[in-house]
Amino acid sequence: MKVVIIGGVAAGATTAARLRRLNKDVEIIMFEKGNYVSYANCGLPYYVSGEIREKSDLLLMTPELFKERFQVDVRVGSEVKAIDPDNQTVAVYNHITEKTYQESYDQLVIATGSVPIRLPIPGIDHPDIQQLWTIEDFVKIRQMVELKNIQTACIIGGGFVGIETAENLRELKVDVDVVEKGAQILNNLDFEMVQPIHKYLNKKGVHLYLNTELMAFEDDHSKIQVKTDAFTKSYDLVILSVGVKPQSELAKQAGIACNQRGGIIVDEHLMTNIPHIYAVGDVIEVEHYINHQKTMIPLAGPANKEGRILANHLMGANESYQGSLGSSIIKVFKMAAASTGFNEKQLQAQGLKRHQDYEVIIIQQKSHAGYYPGATPLTMKVIYDLQQKILGAQVVGYEGVDKRIDVISTAIHYHGKVTDLKDLHIAYAPPFASAKDAVNMVGYVAENIQNGYVKLMLPDEYQQQKDQVITLDVREDEERQVGYIEGSYHIPYGELTKRYQELDTNQTIVIYCAVGVRAYNCARILMQRGYQKVYVLSGGLGFYLDYCYK
Amino acid sequence: MKVVIIGGVAAGATTAARLRRLNKDVEIIMFEKGNYVSYANCGLPYYVSGEIREKSDLLLMTPELFKERFQVDVRVGSEVKAIDPDNQTVAVYNHITEKTYQESYDQLVIATGSVPIRLPIPGIDHPDIQQLWTIEDFVKIRQMVELKNIQTACIIGGGFVGIETAENLRELKVDVDVVEKGAQILNNLDFEMVQPIHKYLNKKGVHLYLNTELMAFEDDHSKIQVKTDAFTKSYDLVILSVGVKPQSELAKQAGIACNQRGGIIVDEHLMTNIPHIYAVGDVIEVEHYINHQKTMIPLAGPANKEGRILANHLMGANESYQGSLGSSIIKVFKMAAASTGFNEKQLQAQGLKRHQDYEVIIIQQKSHAGYYPGATPLTMKVIYDLQQKILGAQVVGYEGVDKRIDVISTAIHYHGKVTDLKDLHIAYAPPFASAKDAVNMVGYVAENIQNGYVKLMLPDEYQQQKDQVITLDVREDEERQVGYIEGSYHIPYGELTKRYQELDTNQTIVIYCAVGVRAYNCARILMQRGYQKVYVLSGGLGFYLDYCYK
Repeated sequence: MKVVIIGGVAAGATTAARLRRLNKDVEIIMFEKGNYVSYANCGLPYYVSGEIREKSDLLLMTPELFKERFQVDVRVGSEVKAIDPDNQTVAVYNHITEKTYQESYDQLVIATGSVPIRLPIPGIDHPDIQQLWTIEDFVKIRQMVELKNIQTACIIGGGFVGIETAENLRELKVDVDVVEKGAQILNNLDFEMVQPIHKYLNKKGVHLYLNTELMAFEDDHSKIQVKTDAFTKSYDLVILSVGVKPQSELAKQAGIACNQRGGIIVDEHLMTNIPHIYAVGDVIEVEHYINHQKTMIPLAGPANKEGRILANHLMGANESYQGSLGSSIIKVFKMAAASTGFNEKQLQAQGLKRHQDYEVIIIQQKSHAGYYPGATPLTMKVIYDLQQKILGAQVVGYEGVDKRIDVISTAIHYHGKVTDLKDLHIAYAPPFASAKDAVNMVGYVAENIQNGYVKLMLPDEYQQQKDQVITLDVREDEERQVGYIEGSYHIPYGELTKRYQELDTNQTIVIYCAVGVRAYNCARILMQRGYQKVYVLSGGLGFYLDYCYK
Repeated sequence: MKVVIIGGVAAGATTAARLRRLNKDVEIIMFEKGNYVSYANCGLPYYVSGEIREKSDLLLMTPELFKERFQVDVRVGSEVKAIDPDNQTVAVYNHITEKTYQESYDQLVIATGSVPIRLPIPGIDHPDIQQLWTIEDFVKIRQMVELKNIQTACIIGGGFVGIETAENLRELKVDVDVVEKGAQILNNLDFEMVQPIHKYLNKKGVHLYLNTELMAFEDDHSKIQVKTDAFTKSYDLVILSVGVKPQSELAKQAGIACNQRGGIIVDEHLMTNIPHIYAVGDVIEVEHYINHQKTMIPLAGPANKEGRILANHLMGANESYQGSLGSSIIKVFKMAAASTGFNEKQLQAQGLKRHQDYEVIIIQQKSHAGYYPGATPLTMKVIYDLQQKILGAQVVGYEGVDKRIDVISTAIHYHGKVTDLKDLHIAYAPPFASAKDAVNMVGYVAENIQNGYVKLMLPDEYQQQKDQVITLDVREDEERQVGYIEGSYHIPYGELTKRYQELDTNQTIVIYCAVGVRAYNCARILMQRGYQKVYVLSGGLGFYLDYCYK
């Protein structure tokens, strides 16, 4: 058998290595358009600041090592220009010899990944506008930073790679602006969950221009002028990072079926509509693990899993890909933001509505026992359907964000309910967790909601009706001095059983404290005394103040 | 309804608070023998070094605050001396007034926790031998450290609290010896998994005396002399921490059924054999979550869960306790060691045998992407039955230990298979995980074993037969210079396809590299070339060298 793989980074290289481990005799040719294979593309932003020092650190494997170890015919600088499914051949252009030749295949694997989107705006072809994609892109940015005196940079687009690069430039004391046409960066998070990150980035000196439309680029001597609908400013460095699209032109030309967004359509065995042609990695459309709808989830984890499954399948195993959940995480200086499953924006795009089709819990807890030094705030949002099944989660904080998202994504893997979270056996010692860990707390809150013991009001809901409700602050006197919600009525928790009659039973009452635990206790006091319209402000005061940040 | 609770720390206080949240009218009396309620007992060791600075940091709740907030009649210094089930009363001794009185109950909750075991050896009653249990114990140790010039300390017993206290004394530059009668400390771990911790503790200046039997204590002027079967030495401070037992004398005297180890027997609703008497927390026998066998798991997490469930039950909910998995974790300086479910010692005590009844995988991976700074070794042991169901896991390392144990314990919660681990959607970015995370790798290895693609040899198995096998080192030349297994044959990975015929096909071959990934690739090369008895040394060279420590 002769397997030809187009693309040698994550999915392609995994397919090749796994194939070889399973079968010593299969002939494997791996074409890579660039000069590197199996490199650490998720590490590239950290090469900019020198956090990852050497380019060699990013090269997990050289083409030579790959050849030697896996007996794979790795051909770099080799671009597949056409696929001929009838004759089972590909046309390969060698960038060094500048010649094109034909190569036959028994099975073809397309692992061409994705490419950065370019915007059709004036000046986009300016040669100094950088993109963030290949090793060469990042090497060039690092060289510019080292050789030219880069003092100002503008990043167009607030996605993962853009924000990671912003951080790394900021570590080098570069003044960084981010221009984002939407109302928020990091679209995997819902608006209220990203607000603490917005606030923190500005504090760190990364200036965010949100709701800002890019108009044009212009040459300005050694700088590039960025024109937006909000401002015009010149920068030493301009980076375009507005998203990616599947690199599927080659496939399309060969008659391989793609979806509207260009993703190659594959079956559960990763086969395209054309026999003997398979596709893996960023270039394909996948099923969402939760609802089995078709989607695009370009991430390294799924790419590696797909490569392995495809190799198993080609060698005769009856294995299929179970779909992607889209778990992802980003470090933002000392903060972290993670998500898994669906966010509310995605659910609403599916036509679902909060309180009708799904419910939302937002809590803020500590990353570990509050009495042990170093505990930091941890905000969790969990979304679940009316049968309590978890649909998605988002976690934002400093420490322990990755742990909580991975625990919840594991629960989702098993189609778990939000109330299951209370029963999870989180390993507890004060430096790592709480005896009632944040994950358990989400389950407790869900159980309380289910049993009618508490009702939550989310920050956006409160924002809309705050003038029509009684806002009750149950913190201590001294806490008020640090800050409070304008117009809130103050009864300290300990006085509530004596003073509750100061509150009107007919009015809606929204209770808050620092994080929500005391507010919940107070809600129980009121609800047991004839107050029906009682809500706890979900996430507490700190999160609400972040929400109101702009 | 009048509920009387005996014991006001974790399970008791949780029961009281939850009861009040559910019902404003129930009369709740909470008796606490000591002077504190709801305190952070898991934080006590960190008070010794001042890592947790103030005693007040440990007091989550004062009796006064508890009274005020929850309208619970908290009575500290109040020791229940007898229970009269027929008359539904308890006899309470007030340590301040030194008087005894009767209190009636409708429902009684026993949350008396556990007490340190005292050894019947000469000199045990020396007044300066400290124990590690109550706030008062730790306050006294801190005072001794601050006021006397404590330079040497001996801790008898290598359990969680003993080792945490050893660390905290060491942070104060005290010379610390630990005397442990068994072959290892931290009994939740199997022997090979604790070896990296043994090695590290000695490096940190905590001297471990293993397999060492305590004989006697003797007064030695201002010091205490410790006599063991291995040495005799005098110390400024001697601490006894050899385990705990349920504090169930009171219950036994009232005719409440207990198991052999003294744990109160309860049904799924936490009720004892006597109507209207319930028990929660360390004092009870629980079901193991995995096999439903009765066991004792004195941990804070379960105690809190039980308290909540009991309160729900007392208020009419039909809820039952699902059992404990025993997830636990300890920080040891910068390392961490965690476990969940069963270890091999426990399985073997149930009469089960490795390879007959269960299988074991040990792998060593990095805590996050190796190319991103700060990645540290992470060793994982996963045990699973012949239907692939996970029975337990242990994780030892520096960073990310808690995350991996919690993800696996969540998989166990859903009765997951070891091969499921490959499919888990671990959120990946270089600072947090690997694209093929350590958890996924365990699943991949399990799948490979299941399919006959690889066989592992565990360090203890290799140790027994290393003289009868060919040991093959497939690392590069320069890696040999750092260390290797005596007598190992060396063929670098890249040369194996050319040189494999140097190896005898009839012999058992055990391959190793640094961690096991290259060894696995090489095993595949050999297995595809007619070698049948090929094994990969599980955990790699680094872990094996730790295993051989001392």
